[in-house]
Amino acid sequence: MSKLTVTPRTVFQTFLDFPLVEDLDRLSADVAIIGMPYGTPYTIDETINDQTNAPTAVRRASQRISLGLDRYDFDIGGTLFEGQDVKVVDVGDVPGQASGSTGHYARAEAAIRKIRAAGALPITIGGDHGIPIPIFRALDGEGPITLVQIDAHLDWRDNVNGVKEGYSSPIRRASEMAHIEAIFQLGIRGQGSARMEEVEAARAYGSNIITAGQWQEIGTAALLERIPDGGRYYLTIDADGLDPAVMPAVEGPSPGGVTYRQTIDLIKGLFAKGEVVGVDIVEIAPARDINEITSMTAGNIILNVIGAAVRAGQFKRQN
Amino acid sequence: MSKLTVTPRTVFQTFLDFPLVEDLDRLSADVAIIGMPYGTPYTIDETINDQTNAPTAVRRASQRISLGLDRYDFDIGGTLFEGQDVKVVDVGDVPGQASGSTGHYARAEAAIRKIRAAGALPITIGGDHGIPIPIFRALDGEGPITLVQIDAHLDWRDNVNGVKEGYSSPIRRASEMAHIEAIFQLGIRGQGSARMEEVEAARAYGSNIITAGQWQEIGTAALLERIPDGGRYYLTIDADGLDPAVMPAVEGPSPGGVTYRQTIDLIKGLFAKGEVVGVDIVEIAPARDINEITSMTAGNIILNVIGAAVRAGQFKRQN
Amino acid sequence: MSKLTVTPRTVFQTFLDFPLVEDLDRLSADVAIIGMPYGTPYTIDETINDQTNAPTAVRRASQRISLGLDRYDFDIGGTLFEGQDVKVVDVGDVPGQASGSTGHYARAEAAIRKIRAAGALPITIGGDHGIPIPIFRALDGEGPITLVQIDAHLDWRDNVNGVKEGYSSPIRRASEMAHIEAIFQLGIRGQGSARMEEVEAARAYGSNIITAGQWQEIGTAALLERIPDGGRYYLTIDADGLDPAVMPAVEGPSPGGVTYRQTIDLIKGLFAKGEVVGVDIVEIAPARDINEITSMTAGNIILNVIGAAVRAGQFKRQN
Amino acid sequence: MSKLTVTPRTVFQTFLDFPLVEDLDRLSADVAIIGMPYGTPYTIDETINDQTNAPTAVRRASQRISLGLDRYDFDIGGTLFEGQDVKVVDVGDVPGQASGSTGHYARAEAAIRKIRAAGALPITIGGDHGIPIPIFRALDGEGPITLVQIDAHLDWRDNVNGVKEGYSSPIRRASEMAHIEAIFQLGIRGQGSARMEEVEAARAYGSNIITAGQWQEIGTAALLERIPDGGRYYLTIDADGLDPAVMPAVEGPSPGGVTYRQTIDLIKGLFAKGEVVGVDIVEIAPARDINEITSMTAGNIILNVIGAAVRAGQFKRQN
Amino acid sequence: MSKLTVTPRTVFQTFLDFPLVEDLDRLSADVAIIGMPYGTPYTIDETINDQTNAPTAVRRASQRISLGLDRYDFDIGGTLFEGQDVKVVDVGDVPGQASGSTGHYARAEAAIRKIRAAGALPITIGGDHGIPIPIFRALDGEGPITLVQIDAHLDWRDNVNGVKEGYSSPIRRASEMAHIEAIFQLGIRGQGSARMEEVEAARAYGSNIITAGQWQEIGTAALLERIPDGGRYYLTIDADGLDPAVMPAVEGPSPGGVTYRQTIDLIKGLFAKGEVVGVDIVEIAPARDINEITSMTAGNIILNVIGAAVRAGQFKRQN
Amino acid sequence: MSKLTVTPRTVFQTFLDFPLVEDLDRLSADVAIIGMPYGTPYTIDETINDQTNAPTAVRRASQRISLGLDRYDFDIGGTLFEGQDVKVVDVGDVPGQASGSTGHYARAEAAIRKIRAAGALPITIGGDHGIPIPIFRALDGEGPITLVQIDAHLDWRDNVNGVKEGYSSPIRRASEMAHIEAIFQLGIRGQGSARMEEVEAARAYGSNIITAGQWQEIGTAALLERIPDGGRYYLTIDADGLDPAVMPAVEGPSPGGVTYRQTIDLIKGLFAKGEVVGVDIVEIAPARDINEITSMTAGNIILNVIGAAVRAGQFKRQN
Repeated sequence: MSKLTVTPRTVFQTFLDFPLVEDLDRLSADVAIIGMPYGTPYTIDETINDQTNAPTAVRRASQRISLGLDRYDFDIGGTLFEGQDVKVVDVGDVPGQASGSTGHYARAEAAIRKIRAAGALPITIGGDHGIPIPIFRALDGEGPITLVQIDAHLDWRDNVNGVKEGYSSPIRRASEMAHIEAIFQLGIRGQGSARMEEVEAARAYGSNIITAGQWQEIGTAALLERIPDGGRYYLTIDADGLDPAVMPAVEGPSPGGVTYRQTIDLIKGLFAKGEVVGVDIVEIAPARDINEITSMTAGNIILNVIGAAVRAGQFKRQN
Repeated sequence: MSKLTVTPRTVFQTFLDFPLVEDLDRLSADVAIIGMPYGTPYTIDETINDQTNAPTAVRRASQRISLGLDRYDFDIGGTLFEGQDVKVVDVGDVPGQASGSTGHYARAEAAIRKIRAAGALPITIGGDHGIPIPIFRALDGEGPITLVQIDAHLDWRDNVNGVKEGYSSPIRRASEMAHIEAIFQLGIRGQGSARMEEVEAARAYGSNIITAGQWQEIGTAALLERIPDGGRYYLTIDADGLDPAVMPAVEGPSPGGVTYRQTIDLIKGLFAKGEVVGVDIVEIAPARDINEITSMTAGNIILNVIGAAVRAGQFKRQN
Repeated sequence: MSKLTVTPRTVFQTFLDFPLVEDLDRLSADVAIIGMPYGTPYTIDETINDQTNAPTAVRRASQRISLGLDRYDFDIGGTLFEGQDVKVVDVGDVPGQASGSTGHYARAEAAIRKIRAAGALPITIGGDHGIPIPIFRALDGEGPITLVQIDAHLDWRDNVNGVKEGYSSPIRRASEMAHIEAIFQLGIRGQGSARMEEVEAARAYGSNIITAGQWQEIGTAALLERIPDGGRYYLTIDADGLDPAVMPAVEGPSPGGVTYRQTIDLIKGLFAKGEVVGVDIVEIAPARDINEITSMTAGNIILNVIGAAVRAGQFKRQN
Repeated sequence: MSKLTVTPRTVFQTFLDFPLVEDLDRLSADVAIIGMPYGTPYTIDETINDQTNAPTAVRRASQRISLGLDRYDFDIGGTLFEGQDVKVVDVGDVPGQASGSTGHYARAEAAIRKIRAAGALPITIGGDHGIPIPIFRALDGEGPITLVQIDAHLDWRDNVNGVKEGYSSPIRRASEMAHIEAIFQLGIRGQGSARMEEVEAARAYGSNIITAGQWQEIGTAALLERIPDGGRYYLTIDADGLDPAVMPAVEGPSPGGVTYRQTIDLIKGLFAKGEVVGVDIVEIAPARDINEITSMTAGNIILNVIGAAVRAGQFKRQN
Repeated sequence: MSKLTVTPRTVFQTFLDFPLVEDLDRLSADVAIIGMPYGTPYTIDETINDQTNAPTAVRRASQRISLGLDRYDFDIGGTLFEGQDVKVVDVGDVPGQASGSTGHYARAEAAIRKIRAAGALPITIGGDHGIPIPIFRALDGEGPITLVQIDAHLDWRDNVNGVKEGYSSPIRRASEMAHIEAIFQLGIRGQGSARMEEVEAARAYGSNIITAGQWQEIGTAALLERIPDGGRYYLTIDADGLDPAVMPAVEGPSPGGVTYRQTIDLIKGLFAKGEVVGVDIVEIAPARDINEITSMTAGNIILNVIGAAVRAGQFKRQN
Repeated sequence: MSKLTVTPRTVFQTFLDFPLVEDLDRLSADVAIIGMPYGTPYTIDETINDQTNAPTAVRRASQRISLGLDRYDFDIGGTLFEGQDVKVVDVGDVPGQASGSTGHYARAEAAIRKIRAAGALPITIGGDHGIPIPIFRALDGEGPITLVQIDAHLDWRDNVNGVKEGYSSPIRRASEMAHIEAIFQLGIRGQGSARMEEVEAARAYGSNIITAGQWQEIGTAALLERIPDGGRYYLTIDADGLDPAVMPAVEGPSPGGVTYRQTIDLIKGLFAKGEVVGVDIVEIAPARDINEITSMTAGNIILNVIGAAVRAGQFKRQN
């Protein structure tokens, strides 16, 4: 009776209690979860936005979606690793600085390069939708890449008030990169930052826009058929691409969105096609959440990414 | 450097920043957005209900659904006005008075008459479901009209405690008006104020009741076929007609409801059939909302009404 | 004018204002609503959990879903009792005690025995998912019974830290009872407390597991065909079996769940097959609710159970 | 074991569980607690204000301040009734009506007349500060009366937009009544509805204004000396007269206010001087409360009124 | 640039980041902070009450009241340890068990005995006011002790429904212990669980009751003079003893309470008189807090206890 | 009846509806209210802190503390301007920029120089406690100045992580300016960022530190006597200097603080001594507020500043 229980003990909260790796130079893993809290703000008041809190929120909520790696996941159809020797780590967050310089984009790009150099799949938790831009850049040696986006909005602005790497421009920036071969934009609906000229630019580029209504009508199987097989894929998921009933905690909720099942079926389909070189989920605004449902759904999506990668044998190829 | 920025400046909040027109006698517009905060209460405690705040809430939330008229709307399939010369205005709210008289119904009726006299389409934001009654009356010179209602509830009470123009009676009142030719009640489900006698009265009248379950089963296209073409239509939308996952902020949430996509497809279908002489959306209770999703969805529905009207050429006919 | 109105009067809140019967030895009813707030905790901090408040929350919310027995219910297709002489009562809650013994399981079992002895259908509001265990026991003279479960999770643990009758074990316990003939587990998805060994135990037993994805794919009619006709059925509904968009207030929200319509169609289907000997709805966590939607949906489900029982003639058989 | 405990039972909530008397014509009591939810609104949006909920809120909170009449109260210095045969009843609320007429003022006046005719001390829970006006009128046969007010604000407006019996005018109205002999206004501070002309009218009348700062400086004993002994007194307490640290839930919180101890010492002092013919406490806005502290403090003040009346022998005189 | 910052890292939260000591048999410290979350419940619903969360809440809030041991504290008049070699540790919480037995009282008593055996001053964070009972027992070899209580309530019940060690009885239990020599009850006011018989029992015992009003009137210096010098003292602080403006988060807020300055002056005075053998602060209900002010004030009080002990040379005597 | 009332109209919200002046080069006023939302952050997460929202919050709350300039203020003892021809304007907020440079300090300094050049008294609403640093600089031509600070904390750090103009350093920076002659630090208590070395630096400088306890003990009159007459004064008020019961919405609530009455008596005393060249109120964190009490009290303090200035004839001297 000489030991008291320490009830309120909280340990470092990585995603799903995966081990924390702080030194990317010595990274050895199949999957690296990474947080990117900071985008490139349009005004000083956006330097820190609610999305900045999302990496912490999703990691915390991850404790409510899984009790351990030995649990059976009926979405995935087995345990997460299916008995394979898979190593997932959490590498923490890309730091910002008080100076306000956007040096964190350079740090983000460097981090992704190291993760890829280590042969690991980066799964990034934003932050707003500006944060994939340095990720895209870090993949320049891995093209040609097919970029798949789930989003309500087109995100095709050249710039907003002169700022070119903010959350309205990630797909435009991607379209300018030589190693991005094709773009699929899924779940698009309602209004965003796009004007007629952005829609025309997207069309001129050859972007494949499938609205939320179209996806619902044709089904996920048919949609997957439109995406060529055998390539390399990057998947960027804007939380507002999903329906607000599934992910209510976003700045721009838009009714009539993509369902959770559509999302995880798409994920499975992409891994069945070829190698996925990275995934991100962005634009979660935790302060607007109810019962952490948005963060928990984000966590479930990440689980499905890992589970699909395992079942597609992606980590066997690499190891 | 002699000018400071006035950060917190807020200007008058009309719906989507459309111009405010306060003098209805000089109205010149294609669409007039109008707020009707006050119904006819059953008890003194209902004089001001949460629905009273809905016009303000929907106008405020409208700022989050559109950044301007040049934005492309993927629900509508283009910019709101599609390049046409369309004029939308906000004419403010019908005032109530401390005396508690329901003189606001007379003012509401007069306002709708002026809007229609000016050739504009009135889009009304309630208020509870009593507020369409004076609107119906104002349309007496425009019959025959087919009334289409999206609602969980029948709203067919003759009176409640002697009050005949409250939120339980709008469709009963409509059924008594000579210029209302036919009634379609869509999305009906669960329990409301209707007893067996109200259901029988509705059936005796010939009301076309399509439950939420039936609509889901047959689809929107088949449903639209049941509504005759070539007429004039009035659409009243009770927020609780939609599913609580889409519009949670209502007094009487009822699971298993109408989806956003069903709603906007119905809207497009009605405008394709003939002239729509008015639309209202009522029974939003902002205090129960989460992340303004109900008010934003209401705003999206209004956008789809305007977009469908533009594409149906309704304003060309009038101008 | 000598009488003042007593505005804040609140009377005892039974479910839907059905009469309260406190003495089960003199029970005479067709349906008995009963609350079971307390499960068997794994830790002292779970002795009182949020689910403990669910019976009160569902009873309170029931006032918002029905204005009286004369109301027409479009989910059910008529008034609740359809003109039949049906008697529904609320028998209150099974009490717990400060001593912390789990004597309430014995009391729960005894209460269900008395309700069944009186020929009534027990509808239980939990509490967590441990509370059906004594209910199952109380039905030992009524086998063979087909157990139907709507749930995200398998609940097939033999024990957790030595505790065998907690919320992770109800189906395992049921599988051990001779009078439980078959088990159908519907809506299963994501991760719960099940490890590979629990999945294998369920399979070895012959449990019929239909995931949420499978149910959506095949439809409710096909699912019902897999359940044999002509038997006796017990239905246990874990609130997290339904989609969080419908029932957000649960400890373990899991996206991609069962819809309200699937649920009520299943209920109608079961009553069409044979006698239903009991229904429970558990795991509602009211503090996480939004606009009481979870509690109201639970109430609607209970209404559909009663309405389906009436229409299946179950009470005629008994009276 | 045949009886279940009915945990969620709630009975009618009177103040401190005192018996409810609904028929004022047969009233036999020493103290009558009465709620007056409705004032005379300046705009339709004030018909129902947050103060309307105060009678219910104070009654509910009263359960947290006393466990029964046998408890010793250290503020009062004994049990509430000190062993005397005292009868306190709750007579419910003065009803309002949907029509919006202010007939409730006539009903309020009639109720107070009946309470006084029965020889009871009326303690009124508002409502806003308009509600004492009919109370004052009902006391016209009991003059001369010294009116004592605790308030941040002067409340001396002749009318606001033509409305003469609203919450800005109670003291002006009192000053016009022949049976009100003198007025003491205590705790006044900051700004209210008073302009220079109202201050001058108060001064011309001879109102004794003691600001919050002055009260703090001179102390309660000295303040009580300024009020003549041996008269009849009516005490009206505006919740914003007290400091927001004590009563935060008011529309017009004003720092630097009256303390709880000053308030109860004043109450004891008034009862020591002569007969108190009525007390009210108004302007509590429950939605702004924190931990029900405002409503609980209001309840404590009411307890001190009753306790002081008992100890002053006021009920002995009457019985 | 190979290391990412791990922003959301949280380490174990001890009070003020003092080191955690889990093995009390090897304790070597001057002060031991200990949490006692569980009392002895009167009903099953009180097994876990809001006070159970207070140790965690106070530890978390402690991070907001001090940036480190090198900070100057103007309440104390220097740094916490004043340059002395003082060792403060946090020993975690006394665990409860699912079985519901109150074995945690035995564990609490044993823990305090070990802390005292190690020569350390125990500062306990409750839990409700039942938790000091085992603490008192653990001090039986250190009498005679003067018990000083700050509280709104007398806590002198012999039992409540047969339960003798609940939160209404700590002072009655203390009065029965031979090693408790004298009792001072400070700040008493309003009503609690005490009936006339409890007040008389307290008086018969010779308890020194000083009401909140008396303390305010005579001042802290005079109050301290009434407590004999040169003894050993135990201080139990019920959070509701302080004014709700200072500690709003309590179950029984009572206006007119003790101020923070009175409290810390009393603490300094006690340490100036003799040895203080233990301090507890109980009855904080974190869910009712605003801006963590209650928990922060509790932390400030603990700092003042340590600071006063240091300045009184109490730890020098022991080391 | 052709005009509808526009209920939700909101116009630009200046403090107390005083006119907005955006061009400081053409400023002609006695008092200029100015907002400074941005300080110099220590980390990127502090770039936008809750204090950034304070100017907007205080302006909005100002509508609840005064109904117009003709109202009598009993704290001030008359109408705000006492019939004098006084001109108060609101000049908006000093803008920040997305680039994150702290150019806003230069803009703040320039703004204050222009305000002083126009002969107006600047009243600044922060922002955190870094924002007075550029204000102090702007007063370099107006020395010698006596700086008076109401604060819980000393704010005397030379730098924090190399940042020299953050919220922990304003008084240290002031001490280094030649035109600051003397410093009075009032209400100091508990712990802040000060270590022994900061306390010693303050003492070495000759700062007059009067703790909250000392102020309470000696009274405001005696405190004012310690501040020399006939000088020029600048008053900086950190909201946490006041008691949390008065201003709960601060990052560092510290019990035992300064009262509202002490604050306004100090303000009156300073204006009685000589010219006050500027006032600021900082560190309000609106998200932590309850019923806007903190923002309203801030507004009341500003009113007392203006009222005291008017009564001291300060504007007559200047005009």
